[in-house]
Amino acid sequence: MIDPPKSVRRFAVAEESRFLSHALIAAGLPEADAGAVAEAMLFADLRGVDSHGIVRLPSYIRRLRAGGINPRPQIRLVREADATALVDGDNRMGHLVMRHAARVAIEKAERHGVAWVGTRGSNHAGAAACYAMMPLARDMIGLYMAVANNNHMAPWGGIEPLLGTNPIAIAVPTLTEPPIVLDIATTAISFGRIRNAADAGERLPEGLVMDYEGRSVTDPAKADHGLLLPIGGYKGFGLSLMFSLLGGVLNGTATGRDAVNIENEAVPGNTGQAIMALRVANFAAVEDFKRRADKVARDIRTSKPMPGVGEVRYPGLNAHRTEEERRRSGIPLRTSFAASLDKLAAELGIASLAPL
Amino acid sequence: MIDPPKSVRRFAVAEESRFLSHALIAAGLPEADAGAVAEAMLFADLRGVDSHGIVRLPSYIRRLRAGGINPRPQIRLVREADATALVDGDNRMGHLVMRHAARVAIEKAERHGVAWVGTRGSNHAGAAACYAMMPLARDMIGLYMAVANNNHMAPWGGIEPLLGTNPIAIAVPTLTEPPIVLDIATTAISFGRIRNAADAGERLPEGLVMDYEGRSVTDPAKADHGLLLPIGGYKGFGLSLMFSLLGGVLNGTATGRDAVNIENEAVPGNTGQAIMALRVANFAAVEDFKRRADKVARDIRTSKPMPGVGEVRYPGLNAHRTEEERRRSGIPLRTSFAASLDKLAAELGIASLAPL
Repeated sequence: MIDPPKSVRRFAVAEESRFLSHALIAAGLPEADAGAVAEAMLFADLRGVDSHGIVRLPSYIRRLRAGGINPRPQIRLVREADATALVDGDNRMGHLVMRHAARVAIEKAERHGVAWVGTRGSNHAGAAACYAMMPLARDMIGLYMAVANNNHMAPWGGIEPLLGTNPIAIAVPTLTEPPIVLDIATTAISFGRIRNAADAGERLPEGLVMDYEGRSVTDPAKADHGLLLPIGGYKGFGLSLMFSLLGGVLNGTATGRDAVNIENEAVPGNTGQAIMALRVANFAAVEDFKRRADKVARDIRTSKPMPGVGEVRYPGLNAHRTEEERRRSGIPLRTSFAASLDKLAAELGIASLAPL
Repeated sequence: MIDPPKSVRRFAVAEESRFLSHALIAAGLPEADAGAVAEAMLFADLRGVDSHGIVRLPSYIRRLRAGGINPRPQIRLVREADATALVDGDNRMGHLVMRHAARVAIEKAERHGVAWVGTRGSNHAGAAACYAMMPLARDMIGLYMAVANNNHMAPWGGIEPLLGTNPIAIAVPTLTEPPIVLDIATTAISFGRIRNAADAGERLPEGLVMDYEGRSVTDPAKADHGLLLPIGGYKGFGLSLMFSLLGGVLNGTATGRDAVNIENEAVPGNTGQAIMALRVANFAAVEDFKRRADKVARDIRTSKPMPGVGEVRYPGLNAHRTEEERRRSGIPLRTSFAASLDKLAAELGIASLAPL
């Protein structure tokens, strides 16, 4: 194998940031927008959401160049009330649409206690936790849901792919513990993990992927064309459906049978998201609440592990530790992927990404 | 076996309603409150959430009589802002606390577009969908989450029961299709289903229940003392945790290691819930949205089923059909349970529940 999973190089955070910005500027984004997208992509790479960071750069660049994403859009609030807004992203980079939506939600929640902002005309926005965590700095809880553009999941009992991996992220502020942050897809496995299994020559467990006859697929090479199964059977299907209704249909985006196939890179995906910000001070003294959240986090961390498990972890703890480690030691990228970035850099006329 | 699962009798809706009201009045509830609780309990029995309807009556009555639930409380808004409120239920019946909270949320969402109301000092409120569906009549989406009082789930990787079956319900209005309504626990199986498997002499599938050493339990007789496993491994654990933070910790209720053991029927449980109402008209023309929701529902219903599956169903469809059938043919209750209600009726000095 040319590229075993462990063949990685490390890259400094500042250097990856520089490279992402320059690449996006070369693809037509204004400088400030490029910086903001770079920051959101770095967020994913720092917190270990490796499938949603720099690894997406080549496809973003292709879509920007083919016209599938608008580099110079007119983003606007289509509808607005005290505690709600609907953002039309005008097919801007999803990271920018969502950053804007999250800021609107936070401002509105500051005044009214809670706010819900939906987006349409949006695009892939990277790691879900990135937006759910934005309200934390203002002592708010964040909740984010997104409609994935590609449908790889069937309704429970069916075999027609009508739903995406539609993720949810929820972030809760703490005092001294790392924040409690859940960021999950509603499918039992992601294509990233399927590819990892293929690379490692491992079979997949039963019940994660099925073929179009409803039979379980355990060969990762065949899983690429299979249907992803939801978490908890009909429960995960129901969650995915609800997130597509709240994050998509409500906002006027294309979903289900009407979803846009974004394999054509010139076609806007019209995807959607939703973010809610909930102001802690409307329910409790902020420090009291954070202390109680700390205790919840600590009670989990210090709870009795299963035989063979070193430590019980709460959602967000591992991502926090990964970020600390990667800020110190750099972000690991596969050698083969890093080489492909060199080619991209040459095409865009920018300096290559230099390893540590 | 004295009571095989199929030994049931049917009871008319009006008669069950009468019986529930009279029993609750006899246990000390004011007449209007008794009627409202009866309605919420009937909701569960009509929609097939059989574990959350009349089957709970004996335990509610025991708690009301032992002082664990307050029949004559002072319910009040502890905190209130434009779009948020915190309700202290003063240990009232959970159904009444939540009905009040949902009404407050709906009124606030009417004015501000979205509202979030939390509860504390609450109790078991029955079927989650009951509250998530209240906003539907006002063309709003409802979202409800609750903290289950008893901890039967461990954090992922752990074996200490720190979490409950913490459910979520989301309801979306439609035009001609039955509304899309998800109502799920975050555990992979409920004790109700475990008891059904025991009654039927069936083994449980792997991965639903484990013992305190982390070993899978498939004998339903042993599962009663086991730990329930979450949907999707760490994902369902994360969801359960988040619902306990948003529905409980934020509102100042007892959760995790501090949860109240409500096996002592004289002790208030101080449980919590949260409800959000989201006004559709703030995002789309209401009829347009409902038409799109109808199409989503229909696309699922008419999608290609797996071999062996008759029809693909969306969440809420089955419950709707069950309600139609039970309104016509009566609510089925196990003969042995119905007999136990006769004893309860005698104790309370009310007329027995008369079968059809």
